[in-house]
Amino acid sequence: MDKAKAYLEPTQGEWDRVSSLSFHPHRVGTDCSFYEYYALRGIRVNRVEPGQVFCTFKVPPRLTDREGKLASGAIANLVDEVGGAVVFVEGLPMNVSVDMSISFLSSAKADDELEIIGRVLGQKGGYSGTSVLVKNKATGELIAEGRHSLFGKHASKM
Amino acid sequence: MDKAKAYLEPTQGEWDRVSSLSFHPHRVGTDCSFYEYYALRGIRVNRVEPGQVFCTFKVPPRLTDREGKLASGAIANLVDEVGGAVVFVEGLPMNVSVDMSISFLSSAKADDELEIIGRVLGQKGGYSGTSVLVKNKATGELIAEGRHSLFGKHASKM
Amino acid sequence: MDKAKAYLEPTQGEWDRVSSLSFHPHRVGTDCSFYEYYALRGIRVNRVEPGQVFCTFKVPPRLTDREGKLASGAIANLVDEVGGAVVFVEGLPMNVSVDMSISFLSSAKADDELEIIGRVLGQKGGYSGTSVLVKNKATGELIAEGRHSLFGKHASKM
Amino acid sequence: MDKAKAYLEPTQGEWDRVSSLSFHPHRVGTDCSFYEYYALRGIRVNRVEPGQVFCTFKVPPRLTDREGKLASGAIANLVDEVGGAVVFVEGLPMNVSVDMSISFLSSAKADDELEIIGRVLGQKGGYSGTSVLVKNKATGELIAEGRHSLFGKHASKM
Repeated sequence: MDKAKAYLEPTQGEWDRVSSLSFHPHRVGTDCSFYEYYALRGIRVNRVEPGQVFCTFKVPPRLTDREGKLASGAIANLVDEVGGAVVFVEGLPMNVSVDMSISFLSSAKADDELEIIGRVLGQKGGYSGTSVLVKNKATGELIAEGRHSLFGKHASKM
Repeated sequence: MDKAKAYLEPTQGEWDRVSSLSFHPHRVGTDCSFYEYYALRGIRVNRVEPGQVFCTFKVPPRLTDREGKLASGAIANLVDEVGGAVVFVEGLPMNVSVDMSISFLSSAKADDELEIIGRVLGQKGGYSGTSVLVKNKATGELIAEGRHSLFGKHASKM
Repeated sequence: MDKAKAYLEPTQGEWDRVSSLSFHPHRVGTDCSFYEYYALRGIRVNRVEPGQVFCTFKVPPRLTDREGKLASGAIANLVDEVGGAVVFVEGLPMNVSVDMSISFLSSAKADDELEIIGRVLGQKGGYSGTSVLVKNKATGELIAEGRHSLFGKHASKM
Repeated sequence: MDKAKAYLEPTQGEWDRVSSLSFHPHRVGTDCSFYEYYALRGIRVNRVEPGQVFCTFKVPPRLTDREGKLASGAIANLVDEVGGAVVFVEGLPMNVSVDMSISFLSSAKADDELEIIGRVLGQKGGYSGTSVLVKNKATGELIAEGRHSLFGKHASKM
């Protein structure tokens, strides 16, 4: 149990660093939340084509894990948000995540430049499948491939 | 393009809230990173059984999305970390994420109490499969089911 | 190219064994298809509880791969069909597969007795998530864990 | 229980069609198995590039489900085998499936011509990630996107 506690529950001093953050409430349903700023700040949308969004993102130190690599969870945030954005761009009334799957193929460290490509794979009724590639921009190496499925919130529009 | 920008790149004023965070560097490979504190602060490990870890977690406002719900990416962080913890508890030399998949079945809002159960599903060579359930503690409703596969970093120990 | 051909395109003599099968046409939408008989013949439904189906299945030689193990694709068939069955039992108008993911944790060989448990994980609008466990019945070892998401075909009923 | 039985256990007469198949034993570890012939017969490897395999496949009636569509399980077989083939072509000592995930985006019916593209996404130690696209060749529409992760069987070569 102590091992699990040490792994998941850092010491008090460490927690205090997070506790000192203050979160201004955001207007629900309108503003981005603090979480989304935290996950995405610094991302740039460079190009939009039908069914595709091309972004770049320099790995910020705030998203690195204990090994100094871009955290798996931070990659999941990118798959989640960029997949959601490409569906949003397509004008589909979809914003509920139903499934997400990610293969982690390589790693990135702070200050690495990433290229992130979101694509609509297809649609079936109110359901959309998207693919998100996360690459090292300099080398072209694939860091992760994710799929994110969303479905239409408003049954009436399906 | 403007829609994608608006979706992924919040306005300057909003970004400033994140920019004002200061990140003390952590000792790589030893300390938890700021990202991990951010994702996990408040989680409690209540019980450890062979191959299982039982945690509780009250949804903090810092992890909510624009709808005021626990963000999908924040659920991915829990799947990632609790899956990693259960493998760590088992004493396996494994800490590289290779695959993660999550079904999102319901949602949680700020202050909801979650029960999070991590399990080792099995192992195959240097590879471990884990399952992570995220439930609403009060109602027992399943919010998400995730699988997280990790594999042994040190080939020599496989 | 020759390696890929040898891997995916067996020799003529081998193909002839399959060609000699004759397929009586089935009534579409009513009968099981030959494929489903082929994938499922021998499965037994032992118990049904709310949201759960318990089956047993003795691994038939026809479903083994070149190593003599239950083929990964045959496990996928079980995840697909047993996940579909548990949703069907629940009376939900759902029969379109949208996502399936499987972790392969161990293997089974011909004549091994399997226990297969299908569960409804939850629902969200017209969408259902199911989980399917494939275990070795004698040892209890988990052979595979799958998730299969389906969604409602008839928008009007969502 | 009757509903589940009817769904998963077809009537005796129907089972007899499968029972009448005779399976010549195959040399384990050398020959393709009957299952693989059954799943793949008719596939053609048209082109091999570094890290990629391009195939075509005309949907045979034997792989259709009760709706007359290419069965989800049959798509899983293609993802499994074509992902395995692309890794085999690359000369990697990998043939154990560890994870597979598939999004089903559209459907195909008997005699539709499919284009199937297998790609190596990347490698990490003894572990390989592959992607398999299944498209309608005539329309280019994506029918399914799968990922299949395999890992090296021979620890000594990792």
